[in-house]
Amino acid sequence: MKRIAVDMDEVVADVLPKFLTLFEQFNGRRPSEEEHLGKKLYQLPGGENLRQALFEKGFFADLQLIPGAQAGIQTLMDQGYEIFFVTAAQEFRNSFEDKYDWLLRHFPSISWKNFVFCGDKSIILTDYLIDDHAFNLRTFSGKGLLFTAPHNISETEFTRVNNWAEVLAFFEQENLANGAR
Amino acid sequence: MKRIAVDMDEVVADVLPKFLTLFEQFNGRRPSEEEHLGKKLYQLPGGENLRQALFEKGFFADLQLIPGAQAGIQTLMDQGYEIFFVTAAQEFRNSFEDKYDWLLRHFPSISWKNFVFCGDKSIILTDYLIDDHAFNLRTFSGKGLLFTAPHNISETEFTRVNNWAEVLAFFEQENLANGAR
Repeated sequence: MKRIAVDMDEVVADVLPKFLTLFEQFNGRRPSEEEHLGKKLYQLPGGENLRQALFEKGFFADLQLIPGAQAGIQTLMDQGYEIFFVTAAQEFRNSFEDKYDWLLRHFPSISWKNFVFCGDKSIILTDYLIDDHAFNLRTFSGKGLLFTAPHNISETEFTRVNNWAEVLAFFEQENLANGAR
Repeated sequence: MKRIAVDMDEVVADVLPKFLTLFEQFNGRRPSEEEHLGKKLYQLPGGENLRQALFEKGFFADLQLIPGAQAGIQTLMDQGYEIFFVTAAQEFRNSFEDKYDWLLRHFPSISWKNFVFCGDKSIILTDYLIDDHAFNLRTFSGKGLLFTAPHNISETEFTRVNNWAEVLAFFEQENLANGAR
């Protein structure tokens, strides 16, 4: 059975709206999309304090789902793929329980056996990795897919998927290439 | 740089004394070593309730170190190995913060980037895995070492290391086989 590692933040869990709200609280305005293309919001002038929020209990507890993520994961499972959620949680001690509960709540059909909290994703052995960070794909031993987020918009090194419909389209091609599943 | 994944419980963190104390609290006596050779304590008559303790906050917070673990890990790092702690924490939501703090306290020279909390260790890509469970070694893609614990005493399938001195002796041989490091 082929295995797919799926990143959490900005692939299934939508961090950006929360950061936009925080930016507005600090600065009295929302940044335009042009301002933060190619960057993380905390790299903008006025965004210096945003990253601190990641260390607080509760930050990851109530993130919205990325559109299409639940149905997309279910479709891949129906096609016979095994899904692992692989998140670089280890910088954020206070995120563990929030992330765990979030996964159980939104993806009840995936066992805790398939949750991985790590720091360096180069240690992950799966056939595919879907991630919004090029640096994770660069050290990955399998086939990497770059899930579009504003910060990675100028990356050209990896197969890009703009949304979950494009993830499924990619795997339709893989299924054809690998013969009938 | 070669990478070694090191399990926590019964390899660097000593769970057994705590279970023996709990068994005594429940049953008014300690089990003899013969009683629990080849078994987990919670598989003994009278041990049925022990496993529940793993789900409680604090269980993993104050475990003693396995003798030689700190010095052994340091020696392997000095020899040029990269160490990852890989623990099957995911069954136990309440263990995450305890295990994280325990690692930071006892192994301050190893970054959180090298801590992995997972369920199924077959997802781990390293050159070596030191673990007390044969089922983890069985699905591992690299070279597995079985670290002796009473429960695994009759396993014969893997290279056995009885203590940290034997871990270091094993890697001395590896170093020789791989040429001067």
